[in-house]
Amino acid sequence: MSALKIKNDVLLFDSGLFIPAIMEIEEKGGYTKTQLRRVGALPDDSYLEKLGLKRLVRALLISHAHLDHVGGVPYVAPKYHAPVISSPYTIEVLKSILKDNKLNLKNKIKAVQLNSTIKIKGDRNYDVEFINMTHSTLQCTFIVVHTKKGAIIYGNDFKLDNFPVIGDKPNYKRLKQIAKQGVKALIIDSLYSGLNQKTPSERIARNMLEDLMLHSINEKKGLLITTFSSHIARLKSIVDFGKKLDRKIIFVGRSLGKYVGAASRIKLAPFTKDISLNSFPNQMRRALKKANIKKSEYMIVSTGHQGEPGSVLDRMARHDLPYNFNAGDQVVFSSSIIPAPINVANRSMLEKRLKKYGVRIFSDIHVSGHGSREDIRDIIELIQPHHIIPSHGSLEQLSPMAELGRELGYRLGKDLHIMQNKQRLKLN
Amino acid sequence: MSALKIKNDVLLFDSGLFIPAIMEIEEKGGYTKTQLRRVGALPDDSYLEKLGLKRLVRALLISHAHLDHVGGVPYVAPKYHAPVISSPYTIEVLKSILKDNKLNLKNKIKAVQLNSTIKIKGDRNYDVEFINMTHSTLQCTFIVVHTKKGAIIYGNDFKLDNFPVIGDKPNYKRLKQIAKQGVKALIIDSLYSGLNQKTPSERIARNMLEDLMLHSINEKKGLLITTFSSHIARLKSIVDFGKKLDRKIIFVGRSLGKYVGAASRIKLAPFTKDISLNSFPNQMRRALKKANIKKSEYMIVSTGHQGEPGSVLDRMARHDLPYNFNAGDQVVFSSSIIPAPINVANRSMLEKRLKKYGVRIFSDIHVSGHGSREDIRDIIELIQPHHIIPSHGSLEQLSPMAELGRELGYRLGKDLHIMQNKQRLKLN
Amino acid sequence: MSALKIKNDVLLFDSGLFIPAIMEIEEKGGYTKTQLRRVGALPDDSYLEKLGLKRLVRALLISHAHLDHVGGVPYVAPKYHAPVISSPYTIEVLKSILKDNKLNLKNKIKAVQLNSTIKIKGDRNYDVEFINMTHSTLQCTFIVVHTKKGAIIYGNDFKLDNFPVIGDKPNYKRLKQIAKQGVKALIIDSLYSGLNQKTPSERIARNMLEDLMLHSINEKKGLLITTFSSHIARLKSIVDFGKKLDRKIIFVGRSLGKYVGAASRIKLAPFTKDISLNSFPNQMRRALKKANIKKSEYMIVSTGHQGEPGSVLDRMARHDLPYNFNAGDQVVFSSSIIPAPINVANRSMLEKRLKKYGVRIFSDIHVSGHGSREDIRDIIELIQPHHIIPSHGSLEQLSPMAELGRELGYRLGKDLHIMQNKQRLKLN
Amino acid sequence: MSALKIKNDVLLFDSGLFIPAIMEIEEKGGYTKTQLRRVGALPDDSYLEKLGLKRLVRALLISHAHLDHVGGVPYVAPKYHAPVISSPYTIEVLKSILKDNKLNLKNKIKAVQLNSTIKIKGDRNYDVEFINMTHSTLQCTFIVVHTKKGAIIYGNDFKLDNFPVIGDKPNYKRLKQIAKQGVKALIIDSLYSGLNQKTPSERIARNMLEDLMLHSINEKKGLLITTFSSHIARLKSIVDFGKKLDRKIIFVGRSLGKYVGAASRIKLAPFTKDISLNSFPNQMRRALKKANIKKSEYMIVSTGHQGEPGSVLDRMARHDLPYNFNAGDQVVFSSSIIPAPINVANRSMLEKRLKKYGVRIFSDIHVSGHGSREDIRDIIELIQPHHIIPSHGSLEQLSPMAELGRELGYRLGKDLHIMQNKQRLKLN
Repeated sequence: MSALKIKNDVLLFDSGLFIPAIMEIEEKGGYTKTQLRRVGALPDDSYLEKLGLKRLVRALLISHAHLDHVGGVPYVAPKYHAPVISSPYTIEVLKSILKDNKLNLKNKIKAVQLNSTIKIKGDRNYDVEFINMTHSTLQCTFIVVHTKKGAIIYGNDFKLDNFPVIGDKPNYKRLKQIAKQGVKALIIDSLYSGLNQKTPSERIARNMLEDLMLHSINEKKGLLITTFSSHIARLKSIVDFGKKLDRKIIFVGRSLGKYVGAASRIKLAPFTKDISLNSFPNQMRRALKKANIKKSEYMIVSTGHQGEPGSVLDRMARHDLPYNFNAGDQVVFSSSIIPAPINVANRSMLEKRLKKYGVRIFSDIHVSGHGSREDIRDIIELIQPHHIIPSHGSLEQLSPMAELGRELGYRLGKDLHIMQNKQRLKLN
Repeated sequence: MSALKIKNDVLLFDSGLFIPAIMEIEEKGGYTKTQLRRVGALPDDSYLEKLGLKRLVRALLISHAHLDHVGGVPYVAPKYHAPVISSPYTIEVLKSILKDNKLNLKNKIKAVQLNSTIKIKGDRNYDVEFINMTHSTLQCTFIVVHTKKGAIIYGNDFKLDNFPVIGDKPNYKRLKQIAKQGVKALIIDSLYSGLNQKTPSERIARNMLEDLMLHSINEKKGLLITTFSSHIARLKSIVDFGKKLDRKIIFVGRSLGKYVGAASRIKLAPFTKDISLNSFPNQMRRALKKANIKKSEYMIVSTGHQGEPGSVLDRMARHDLPYNFNAGDQVVFSSSIIPAPINVANRSMLEKRLKKYGVRIFSDIHVSGHGSREDIRDIIELIQPHHIIPSHGSLEQLSPMAELGRELGYRLGKDLHIMQNKQRLKLN
Repeated sequence: MSALKIKNDVLLFDSGLFIPAIMEIEEKGGYTKTQLRRVGALPDDSYLEKLGLKRLVRALLISHAHLDHVGGVPYVAPKYHAPVISSPYTIEVLKSILKDNKLNLKNKIKAVQLNSTIKIKGDRNYDVEFINMTHSTLQCTFIVVHTKKGAIIYGNDFKLDNFPVIGDKPNYKRLKQIAKQGVKALIIDSLYSGLNQKTPSERIARNMLEDLMLHSINEKKGLLITTFSSHIARLKSIVDFGKKLDRKIIFVGRSLGKYVGAASRIKLAPFTKDISLNSFPNQMRRALKKANIKKSEYMIVSTGHQGEPGSVLDRMARHDLPYNFNAGDQVVFSSSIIPAPINVANRSMLEKRLKKYGVRIFSDIHVSGHGSREDIRDIIELIQPHHIIPSHGSLEQLSPMAELGRELGYRLGKDLHIMQNKQRLKLN
Repeated sequence: MSALKIKNDVLLFDSGLFIPAIMEIEEKGGYTKTQLRRVGALPDDSYLEKLGLKRLVRALLISHAHLDHVGGVPYVAPKYHAPVISSPYTIEVLKSILKDNKLNLKNKIKAVQLNSTIKIKGDRNYDVEFINMTHSTLQCTFIVVHTKKGAIIYGNDFKLDNFPVIGDKPNYKRLKQIAKQGVKALIIDSLYSGLNQKTPSERIARNMLEDLMLHSINEKKGLLITTFSSHIARLKSIVDFGKKLDRKIIFVGRSLGKYVGAASRIKLAPFTKDISLNSFPNQMRRALKKANIKKSEYMIVSTGHQGEPGSVLDRMARHDLPYNFNAGDQVVFSSSIIPAPINVANRSMLEKRLKKYGVRIFSDIHVSGHGSREDIRDIIELIQPHHIIPSHGSLEQLSPMAELGRELGYRLGKDLHIMQNKQRLKLN
């Protein structure tokens, strides 16, 4: 969560959950706010209270639908007299989260179309634009707050994808226009600022899936693919090729239910009619039981790509769900391992189990959702901000921005600011 | 180099140079056989002599045009009264090598079309097929020797590319037919047997190049791309997108001259008319001088992707060729670092130099030419050989084949044989 | 487990548990044989049965007291009419395991002094020597079986420690004598054959502990050290310096009870009088409660160096035992992380918890118990075996032995044999 | 180089060479200032000039004798009207550098005894103390500038070695006294702030050397040890055990001549009488020729531990010096690889050459000279500075100090300052 203060108004950007911390909670149907606080999963906004800024908050602006950006809203928003504003898909996911956790939110919730502007009222008024950006779920945005001193752009979680499978390319044109009018500061996803790359497009993942699904030897075998549940474009590719294989396609997993369901409700999951979506325990068991009888006639799309204990794939591998893997069955990980030791361990144990059955494993059929150094450079050159605030990584991960900034004419401590939680920066 | 002995006949597969050893030679226009022997760059075929097998050699069968498979032929072939046989492109490259090193070969040299058969005469006669296979240069093959006891397949250096940019998919159909007739043994490229993957198609590299070249900010900047000189399909993609950028395309480097020239001569480089090929010192200087004047109007394709001292890119970076890199110029490495410490060091030093000028570096715009574990599995399932002989890696790299073999029903030491140089295996 | 067959006699070396597999069992006070079989934790000796060799087994010879060498004995030995023979400490640990798991063993159990010989009767008779060797627990041995065709030496798990903290240097002298008489084969721990090193002596770990314990700032702070429970020499060093700090020393943990108890009973734990040993739940809680009151007066030695869930240190970090870590308390890991993803993950999570309290962490105050390449070379040069059988690692880990062997004049497949489970080798 | 400005006085700390940059110069007997400037090897003190501070410089205070701290003095000092001040050994090495490069220095050069104070005169006067600290060469120091607002401590390049082989432990007592009087700021070597360790004492390296040299099989073989030429304590250990082996000890290499010579001249190399020191080309050839005749009677100590091309060991391995390595000869690297790709590559190539001869390689018989996280914590706790300025690493390497600082009550940007070259910090 980031806070932007302009005179007597405060705007909040994102309010996410710290995912690694959540793993410490033994979940049984939702978390409580107390649990989340205890493990450090919620943004610590006590700071705002201490500074007497709480009552100045005019809006919570959410960039996209990932849990580490929207997941904290149900717990954090209530203390502010301010609306929660985001793109339609993000709002739909937020509602889903609220429902799953049996929570209500008294704040107003507003969905804004991509590339449109909303007025925020406060001591002064602000035009806030939600500009279409590409990442790894639907309807991601750069949030632009227009102020008298220039625009402030909140650009967390992006890649520059010129061949997205769903949705449009980034709205370069509008960003250029805003650049011309002057951008005071750019808060920017710098996770992979050290990687000399342009992050490959989603088209690349799609093509790899096509090759793998349609050209490896799998006619008589079981086929399971697991990916990020919120990655609707990826799921579309998987379904497209699954149809070519003439297999019945079943989605199995609670979080698939959440994200695909949300997309369906707002007509953004074009493949809804081609799949059966199973997200409740009994549904899941029934679906898998059926698929287990004629394995070569089904394609299973499941949760569990990180080997998470309790996920569908993990339970299948433990014989805790009615499906038997056999030699030659294919398990495709359309994901990469999120680099934390626990994920590495979980995946390693899952793969060992699968290998005992003789399952064929395809790893890393995936492209990242985060831009690399050369994408970051392109966006900075496009936007020409006066100040850069690298974001979305540890101090070590943000460090390469010091050098990239220098290459682009910025100076650390002067107009490029590597910051930590709870640090404040004053721009003149 | 591998030798196959059947009664009184010996057939040799490949005769390559050990590339890491060559680096120890300070080259000045070609190597001598003595130099190559001293550093251990040539296959040690003294073994055949000691066993009295030299005079039984009936043919040198070469799988493809890479130096580590054909580069030893000029030095090794002369001692055998036997023809050198390979695909047209490989033969053209061999001739080029002979010319560059001012060598003659008294052996007969025969070009065989892909997917055709040649008869080898010896004590008995053998049908030898050169089957179309995909890898990372033109006209790569699996070599099939038909014997009374079944086929022997030499399957070094392959990937299963279903979307090759030039040439056809692997000839799965013919391999299946041969499988039905019975395959005694398969010598198989197992370099990446430990990698749970299907190696991505060349189409993937093409798409990444397209995205990078056509969608990053480079209008007013210099643009240089470096890749493997023998990778004609990659070069085709680079030229295709270079044309869309409306830049003049100049190839600069001696080995580009060799491999592209060879492809041109047999009409396999469809882009010949779109480029200027500069491989002699004066040509290179002149071409770069021109490009240096209007950098944004040119695209340079050069040697030096490993940062090799003396390569064109290395010399450009040292101001040893008349071209000046400036901030924002793009250098694209359409290659990966061949994993040896010296390459890591060379690349690191090259990149440091480039970064001093403010050059933008794009790394790893590349896919491998070697199949991974799941490709190897597919090909074994397709060919159903009685014996497997993993090849093309160190003992450590071949070790995962023991497990893969077990998954497929083979047993180490019985019908799967991990072997070292100069070891013999007798198949009954 | 390895089996040596000489005509009509079979001798078995070691019978261990495969530790990674055990982690899959949710333990509640001991394992059952069925559980252990299911997860693949027991040596698969069905092979011997199939070959009709079961009744020829004359003895189970156990090299040392680690679980992966002695832990399978209670489950495997019963099917053989043969005694279990090892050094006194190993036997004492075996008895402890039997007691803990409430098992009886009808096999005879014999303790043999280090550097002495026992006669094994079978179709023929054999002198079997247990020669003193150094490793990382007490009374480790090389087992020498004297046969008419020369000695067979089982040399698993060793280092060449010339400054062991407890016990003697390896018995080089006797090994030299045996070498002179001729050694047919050496089965040898080759885990670190790829490491260009001589593994540091236990003295090194002792000195590092001394420096750390006596010279870092810890006067007013809690101090906890965790190490391998069977590493009695290491524990001795820890106690020695703990005494200099004038702290009360409490050992806390079930497996500490097992290994230290066993050593005490046979007078091999010289520090017994200086410590309080707490291995039962109530004991542990009481001891920690006390220590928690005056933390600077106590030194805790606990289990949990791998971050194992349920170990004492893990539970302390989770506030599941009555001890509170505070800022500046020291936790010393006198161990290295056993390289498996689950250990990396467990340690990472443990360290995160400890760091939240502000605890100071000292990692890797440790030396390995396994010899490196240059130790292996020394021992081969000393023993001069006709055949070498590398042991105690995956195929990948044993691969460097091919090169080391070649340097010493051995040839893979001829007199150096890299083998896998269930493979047989016939020596003429 | 760091500059401390107090009102109208400037004191400079260290003036080193940036070693990686130097490798780009093809050296033929010394560097020129122009060369060094061009490659970026000298501190860029133009900054001081621009700020008009040049004339305020009152002293160059040098912490220790390593090139990256003293090596720039000959080129940088001349522009200041100020003395160069350091410990006797550092001064002796500086003189050696000047002589080798045929340079004169008009600045006054003053040697100050360890743990003594010198007065610096300027607009005001300052007491400057050189406090004994341990690192990896002789007479290293923390430099303490006493000001009215408290002490400023320059603490670059240190470990806390309580068992140094030569010299005394760090002067903890005096540091404590100064801490009591109040320390305004501590500039502190934070290279390994991310490593949860206490760096092992030099005693550890000594013991490993003893074990290796006296207990591996080397009676009839050649023995060569290579280490850092300036590491006089390490060299002492090597000589001590070489004498026990009853071998003639010859030092071979130009930089050994420089550093050992300097130590000898001021009576700090206790082993001078036990060795022959060969630093000139003819001397070196002659000495090696002799050693080559009776290899088992000599121990060679040489340069070349990083595999540097042109170093003695590198040339020996290339047969460019009159010594022949044979199978079983020992080469001991009492060093670690300085982590840069070029060093990794050089070492790798050197080791390949040595292995071709069958040489036994012992790597990493070494301990670091830099403190780890827990040493840094101890020293901060001891000194209790108001401000911390991490030093001696890249931004990435210094990043862990943010967390360590927080654990100790400091806050990034407030009293802990991670800085880059040419950045200024104002302390109130």
